[in-house]
Amino acid sequence: MGGGPTNEKILCLLPGPEPIEIIERIRARYPKAEVTYVSRAFGTNNSDLSPDLFKDKTILFTTAVLPSEPSAAPHLKYVHLFSAGVDRILKHPLFLESNIPFSNCSGVHGPQISEWVIMTLLIHGHKYLPMYDAQKERKWSRNFSNGTRDLVGQRIGILGYGAIGRQVAHITKAMGMEVLAYTATPKDTPESRADHGYFVPGIGDPDGSIPSEWFSGLDKPSLHKFLSQNLDVLIVSVPLTPDTHHFLSSAEFDILGKNPPLISNIARGPIIDQPALIKALEDGRVGSAALDVTDPEPLPADDPLWVAPNTIITPHISGASTAYIERAFQVFERNLENIEKGQPLINIISRKKGY
Amino acid sequence: MGGGPTNEKILCLLPGPEPIEIIERIRARYPKAEVTYVSRAFGTNNSDLSPDLFKDKTILFTTAVLPSEPSAAPHLKYVHLFSAGVDRILKHPLFLESNIPFSNCSGVHGPQISEWVIMTLLIHGHKYLPMYDAQKERKWSRNFSNGTRDLVGQRIGILGYGAIGRQVAHITKAMGMEVLAYTATPKDTPESRADHGYFVPGIGDPDGSIPSEWFSGLDKPSLHKFLSQNLDVLIVSVPLTPDTHHFLSSAEFDILGKNPPLISNIARGPIIDQPALIKALEDGRVGSAALDVTDPEPLPADDPLWVAPNTIITPHISGASTAYIERAFQVFERNLENIEKGQPLINIISRKKGY
Repeated sequence: MGGGPTNEKILCLLPGPEPIEIIERIRARYPKAEVTYVSRAFGTNNSDLSPDLFKDKTILFTTAVLPSEPSAAPHLKYVHLFSAGVDRILKHPLFLESNIPFSNCSGVHGPQISEWVIMTLLIHGHKYLPMYDAQKERKWSRNFSNGTRDLVGQRIGILGYGAIGRQVAHITKAMGMEVLAYTATPKDTPESRADHGYFVPGIGDPDGSIPSEWFSGLDKPSLHKFLSQNLDVLIVSVPLTPDTHHFLSSAEFDILGKNPPLISNIARGPIIDQPALIKALEDGRVGSAALDVTDPEPLPADDPLWVAPNTIITPHISGASTAYIERAFQVFERNLENIEKGQPLINIISRKKGY
Repeated sequence: MGGGPTNEKILCLLPGPEPIEIIERIRARYPKAEVTYVSRAFGTNNSDLSPDLFKDKTILFTTAVLPSEPSAAPHLKYVHLFSAGVDRILKHPLFLESNIPFSNCSGVHGPQISEWVIMTLLIHGHKYLPMYDAQKERKWSRNFSNGTRDLVGQRIGILGYGAIGRQVAHITKAMGMEVLAYTATPKDTPESRADHGYFVPGIGDPDGSIPSEWFSGLDKPSLHKFLSQNLDVLIVSVPLTPDTHHFLSSAEFDILGKNPPLISNIARGPIIDQPALIKALEDGRVGSAALDVTDPEPLPADDPLWVAPNTIITPHISGASTAYIERAFQVFERNLENIEKGQPLINIISRKKGY
């Protein structure tokens, strides 16, 4: 990977118009590189693109549009993905059959998605929605504030202590909550608890010092141990992999039901067994839900989730931010520099773990 | 004030049923004291109470119900108020004509009111309300997330850096915002920047280290200097006094209009010239508003504020919390101890400043 990107042929297949200042910044930094920007809606389909587009490219920055197979991009040596979740490309031949490093945009979403988590947590806790309805009717009604519980002393479990989970921890600790972290693999040392990926300066939990307790293990007993910690709030921020498909289902809601929590999912819909969640919301094993992701998406109009009790649904928008493009390119440019200097890339996706 | 409260006659005139555990805790701590609890809705009217009720009492813990004049409570030596704002009692003879120390519940509201501030800030920033309306119609519509701006790098001005302002600072700094503080009197030394009142442990900014800049001064030029700092968000958390009545009016909105901010008022309605605010929201000098307090309260159904652009109104409930009573008694009990030990009381209201 060493040798410098001075002669790289870079292709950006990204949504929205070309961010001219950023592209000029890259060209100014690497005057011998060739940078092509193609505006491209989200999705994985490449059928309308000329197969020649990928032929000479060495670096690709894309939503999830890839050359159909490794041979269509013989010079490709690095792929950067515009999203943090990579479930959409895990079965793609280019990922499966090559050793080309893929990186993702983990860390870019930390601020805005953690804000979404805090917003929905507070809307539930402060019973705001009936007040919004009352405002529309010009009614000054103080009935709704009975039983408002602030977050001081409440326990938040963060299932998946990545970039988003760390910033949720940072904010909720400032609000007086106790933070419990869960990771797939054990984090027993300071080094293993540190955040080695991209993060926005001042944001998150770079050294992993916030949680009062750490839990780990993809097996059911380990998961159940974490879920039985009398959590008041459970944030779902694990990647979707075969291991985490329907990670939370009826047996898990039974455990949570001893202290019915708010469940907040900003990861992927299928991590939760959705019919089981609806049942748990109806019978009170789960107190409330905040879901930016559903199964499927878009959620069909006749899906019973729309009217599950105490449930906030938003259409997979928590990652939106006017700062997204700038931060996504910051990760990309960091890795262009790492390639130039022959240093290890950041935010690399493990083919073994699938995230 | 020294000598111990062992023989004190304590009267609590508070809303809600008697908090039995707390009252028992006080009786256990001071077995020779006499503690009377009278359940009493919010308000200042005492006309239905027997004048004898106050006659022998030495300590009073009340919403704002007071003996009509000092002579009606000849043994009274300390009054603790259930609220943080004290504007309702500033003109009461007992406050004006006696030297009895009055304390307030400043600090009790920090967690819940700061949560209300953060909630409404995020609802505006993430354009959540149209998504709520879409959910009710079972519509998966992603149109609303265009232009969502997260808080990283935004500037928040906190007009009144008391207990609530400090906790807003604590949380918004964790979210990546830059905090600017304003106080009536200059805070030029570390000692003057510290919080000397009651605060919930882990909450707030006890040593005043969060703001990047401090501003002060009740005169217009000083206020205008603070308001011209390109604020993205302005939190109103000053007490209502003659100095702060209509503190924000048309001239102030002109200054803010260079970078139209969100204005959030959790203090008292009359601090803002409300017709001037409506006009500024309409012509864009103020971008949006979040108001838990209005002028008057309740806000009449025909008031134009109800439909001002980008305005969230809630009915003066941001201070509600299931933890309120416990925390309010923590302040009171701290001062019972201070009386016993002959130490200075906390949260004392200045008769000169009026807060």
